[in-house]
Amino acid sequence: MFDTARDTRIDVTALNRQLLGTWADIRLEAREMIKDEAFWQIPGQHYTEHRARVLEQLKTLAAKDGGARSFPKEYGGHETQGGNIAGFEELVLADPSLQIKSGVQWGLFTSAIYQLGTKKHWDKWLPDAISMKLPGAFAMTETGHGSDVQSIATTATYDPETEEFVINTPFHGAYKDYLGNAANDGRAATVFAQLITNGVNYGVHCFFVPIRDENGEHLDGIISEDDGPKGGLNGIDNGRLCFDNVRVPRENLLNKYGDVAADGTYSSPIASPGRRFFTMLGALVQGRVSLDGAATWGAALALKIAVTYGNQRRQFDDGTGSETVLLDYGKHRRRLIPRIATAYAQTFSHDELLKKFDLVFSGAEDTDETRQDLETLAAALKPLSTWNALDTIQEAREACGGQGFLAENRLVGLHHDLDVYVTFEGDNNILLQLVGKRLLGDFAAQFKGKDSKQLAAYAAKQGASKVFHGAGLRQLGQAFADLGSTARSVEFGLREEDQHQLLADRVQQMVTDVGTRLNAARKLPPVEAQEVFNENQVELLEAARAHGELLQWEAFTDALDKTSDEGTCTVLTWLRDLFGLSLIEKHLAWYLVSGRLSAQRGQALTSYIDRLCNRLRPHAQDLVDAFGFAPEHVRAPIASGAEDTRQNEARAYFAELRKSGNAPIPEKKAKKQ
Amino acid sequence: MFDTARDTRIDVTALNRQLLGTWADIRLEAREMIKDEAFWQIPGQHYTEHRARVLEQLKTLAAKDGGARSFPKEYGGHETQGGNIAGFEELVLADPSLQIKSGVQWGLFTSAIYQLGTKKHWDKWLPDAISMKLPGAFAMTETGHGSDVQSIATTATYDPETEEFVINTPFHGAYKDYLGNAANDGRAATVFAQLITNGVNYGVHCFFVPIRDENGEHLDGIISEDDGPKGGLNGIDNGRLCFDNVRVPRENLLNKYGDVAADGTYSSPIASPGRRFFTMLGALVQGRVSLDGAATWGAALALKIAVTYGNQRRQFDDGTGSETVLLDYGKHRRRLIPRIATAYAQTFSHDELLKKFDLVFSGAEDTDETRQDLETLAAALKPLSTWNALDTIQEAREACGGQGFLAENRLVGLHHDLDVYVTFEGDNNILLQLVGKRLLGDFAAQFKGKDSKQLAAYAAKQGASKVFHGAGLRQLGQAFADLGSTARSVEFGLREEDQHQLLADRVQQMVTDVGTRLNAARKLPPVEAQEVFNENQVELLEAARAHGELLQWEAFTDALDKTSDEGTCTVLTWLRDLFGLSLIEKHLAWYLVSGRLSAQRGQALTSYIDRLCNRLRPHAQDLVDAFGFAPEHVRAPIASGAEDTRQNEARAYFAELRKSGNAPIPEKKAKKQ
Repeated sequence: MFDTARDTRIDVTALNRQLLGTWADIRLEAREMIKDEAFWQIPGQHYTEHRARVLEQLKTLAAKDGGARSFPKEYGGHETQGGNIAGFEELVLADPSLQIKSGVQWGLFTSAIYQLGTKKHWDKWLPDAISMKLPGAFAMTETGHGSDVQSIATTATYDPETEEFVINTPFHGAYKDYLGNAANDGRAATVFAQLITNGVNYGVHCFFVPIRDENGEHLDGIISEDDGPKGGLNGIDNGRLCFDNVRVPRENLLNKYGDVAADGTYSSPIASPGRRFFTMLGALVQGRVSLDGAATWGAALALKIAVTYGNQRRQFDDGTGSETVLLDYGKHRRRLIPRIATAYAQTFSHDELLKKFDLVFSGAEDTDETRQDLETLAAALKPLSTWNALDTIQEAREACGGQGFLAENRLVGLHHDLDVYVTFEGDNNILLQLVGKRLLGDFAAQFKGKDSKQLAAYAAKQGASKVFHGAGLRQLGQAFADLGSTARSVEFGLREEDQHQLLADRVQQMVTDVGTRLNAARKLPPVEAQEVFNENQVELLEAARAHGELLQWEAFTDALDKTSDEGTCTVLTWLRDLFGLSLIEKHLAWYLVSGRLSAQRGQALTSYIDRLCNRLRPHAQDLVDAFGFAPEHVRAPIASGAEDTRQNEARAYFAELRKSGNAPIPEKKAKKQ
Repeated sequence: MFDTARDTRIDVTALNRQLLGTWADIRLEAREMIKDEAFWQIPGQHYTEHRARVLEQLKTLAAKDGGARSFPKEYGGHETQGGNIAGFEELVLADPSLQIKSGVQWGLFTSAIYQLGTKKHWDKWLPDAISMKLPGAFAMTETGHGSDVQSIATTATYDPETEEFVINTPFHGAYKDYLGNAANDGRAATVFAQLITNGVNYGVHCFFVPIRDENGEHLDGIISEDDGPKGGLNGIDNGRLCFDNVRVPRENLLNKYGDVAADGTYSSPIASPGRRFFTMLGALVQGRVSLDGAATWGAALALKIAVTYGNQRRQFDDGTGSETVLLDYGKHRRRLIPRIATAYAQTFSHDELLKKFDLVFSGAEDTDETRQDLETLAAALKPLSTWNALDTIQEAREACGGQGFLAENRLVGLHHDLDVYVTFEGDNNILLQLVGKRLLGDFAAQFKGKDSKQLAAYAAKQGASKVFHGAGLRQLGQAFADLGSTARSVEFGLREEDQHQLLADRVQQMVTDVGTRLNAARKLPPVEAQEVFNENQVELLEAARAHGELLQWEAFTDALDKTSDEGTCTVLTWLRDLFGLSLIEKHLAWYLVSGRLSAQRGQALTSYIDRLCNRLRPHAQDLVDAFGFAPEHVRAPIASGAEDTRQNEARAYFAELRKSGNAPIPEKKAKKQ
């Protein structure tokens, strides 16, 4: 008899290709390269040795052309934007320190020169930065200002006498901090500072500042401090930089978006200081984009390890004299299988993000609007995937018990290294707030010219119905829909269209609720207005998260259309349903309170999720195998056959013992005799 | 005007004394001792050096009488059971490796000799074990069996010819694993093995087995392996032990609960093999008890650091030209203040656990029933506090941004070290399953003699009403209540009695639901019965967790009666309400689905929690200061004034600049001129 759950087959090879996404070839090339153990993290290595090792790896990588992909051909580059990020993300499998130190060197330092500078800067520094002859730090964050970059306190004051900028750190809070390559390896830094000329502060600009000579000695006026050991990423020499009135030539201003003439006159192609600032920052969005991908692979690797072990490890007699495989326990299924669904959703949504990134940065679709959409998309996805990585890795580690705690099995190291992904390149909560404000902006635009009373009355009346369509990948950037309400039942089924409706409605309703309340507080004095904002902050962040979840769900659903193998498509549809319904279950209280789901439907949801976990259980191994990690990427002994060997040896021993007739009799049986 | 939220005052000194609990003096003594930096963890130290350091610390501790507290006076002990655990828990503030290595030496290895052995063993080994002349490993867990100790495969076969036991490891899965002191320092081990004599297996017993000579060389037949670097606790030399037919004298069987005569005849004071096994294991419950306390201090320390920083760190202009203190943001309040409430609940419930432990182990109230209650209580509380520690430390680390990721600020180290607390000394899920089964047992006892149809009909009819009273600290061990239903409204307020009702009802209803379904499956064949169990496992674990939450809530509420200062009592009552309501909010979907809360009430709950967070915000610093950590316990620079100094320096700089008249004009203003 054909059992759908059991006998449906996944085409693992084809699915792997689909998961690798648009730049599969570059990913495979990177994965091939890091099969060389010279790139692998050595668990337990002291941080000073780890730093030296990763520095060497970076030089090897540069020699293999690894830092060049995104840059112009005339500087040895390949001019592939999406492909560059894709290849770079794969390094996380070798050692996240390698990935992030590469990111510092090429994604931040070199990219700042390229994205914020002009040809004279490219000619002078790009080749050496690409080849690692010129290791550099990206000096934006200060001890006192991380999320609020606009308020950094480092100054770059123009001196027309000498045609130099004077870079200065006025107090301890203005030290540049947490910078990779700052403690040891950097020879220069791209330094963000308030540009002051003729007594006017033109806001944050970026300057190329040499910091060490050929022998690694600090240049005059440069002080650096070592951030010391960290929670992870200890292959990177993070540190602080302080500038004591350091002078650099006028030409060292990276002047694409703002320049100072010899006489000190400031000019910029972007008149608005605010827009100019956000344009400069937006040019560096690739960090966020790549963290979304790397975090997703990190979670996927953890699942590969935990599912493989859970499929081999046995514990407790199942009542027939044989021990139960962990993944056959209800709790074990529930703790791992929904997380496979999330990893898939993230893999597909990340490829969408990467394609959008490529369109903008290749110049194919580079407008203010597409840049804004890209930034919003990155700000929505990066928090979800990085938090999910920590959650998934931790669950995987616990699911592997004591083995999970051994460094050799990789899970603890992944957690340590990926921990900071949730607060760097934009703190996750701050990023979600950006997304929330964008959604509020769309919301407000819809009601321009209407007064707040009308609006509040309208929102109260609308309840469950659609207020806008801005909350989805498909409609990203579209205007809000008409006010026209669509009456409909509060009851839903749980199929694809229902899932979409429920997820999209939640975004819309939450943004409407918060928007209405903030709109009513618009005319309050600043302090009171901020208190109203504070009272709504948690819900606004939650709305932004809901928006990101919807984007992931949509990307997963779109991927089903591209899955040609029937068996694979069937299993992926179950997996997508599991993803969608798990999201709805997570927010079930909201759906019940808002009247969108009945209590009965809420209960049905949980049993349906349980059934989906059971149906997917026979496919769990295929689903994690489809990530395509080779033994050199996995490396964890418990996921490389060691547990299987032990189980077989134990079973053979007991079988032999029984056969020999020498097995001791259990006390209970002996008593009965 | 008197503002209750702002002007109510906490008596921090008195509250500190209350939080330190029953054995405050011993805690203070331990805290005083670890002010010596010789006991502190050095962030970033290589694990081999860290191990050597902690070994030295243990010797110092022994010299200061730190390992002796629980043992009989004739062996140099103090015979204080609760006090011993209390003092030991405080070591987590110095270095969790020190706490756990002490636990291995005195809480496990030495305790096994004392709890499972008899006077001849005490005379021979206790003094040296207490003084650290005899470092030892506790060899229970095997690579293949952790949670299922009954199935360990190491054998101890009695040889009447030589009057020796032959200890043997039959295959790789039977290696003893993850043992502190096994890789380097241990001279002996208390080894758990299947006792076989005259061809009968009498189940798991414990043997004293020497493993290394005075020079640290392995004795004949002993193989040890190093577990290598781990996710944390790297000051401990965890490793594996393998026994190749190692012979020990008959007297080395720790024979309190089972003995073998010279001729090989087995005898035991406990006839039932099952009860005997659980009695032996129960004698070692102190590990779990102490983890509950240590995890609670770990979470408290993280909150002390994050709240102090959150009260000094500023980011983003508040609209008046001044920057907002982090803890004034709605999200920051919500992420930290409810976790203070949980830490308080845990502190109070842990003291209850410790008092119960003391009553049993001092012999004051030592019966089968009190032992079972103690084990259930420990199994309910340890999972909640250890998981909460990881969650709280992680949130604290993220709330401190980049600073939180620096090892010097302690949060990442605490997370690394406490990670394994959730899976060792009983995997948290397995412990909750024990609690769940105990609750099911109470449930089943209530209905003995009634058939399953009657029962199902009854359960369906009862719905929200009370089925039993077994689910609370106050009633622990009491029988289930009568079947008589108490009709009452599904609507509740949110006051103390309502919180209790809601929390208790949830336990009762979930146990009833699961119990009814499992009862119906009682007569199925093993494989099908296990599948029914699996289908209910997640809910059973959730019921056990709900039981633990109720215990914590009750302990917090009982503590309010003991708070004499009025202001303190007022603030603690808000904090207890926040704890109770946050639990209800966490499970809101359940309350809505089960008809116990209406949608309106559910919404009111969330706003009330927000209001409580606001009301508690001015007291946040006092609440974390009341944990009583001295600078030598906190050590994190960001919680020791460094941030405050930086903020003041920055503000002074800008004030001076404004006064000087040399401040650059912002571009926007310059344009207007």
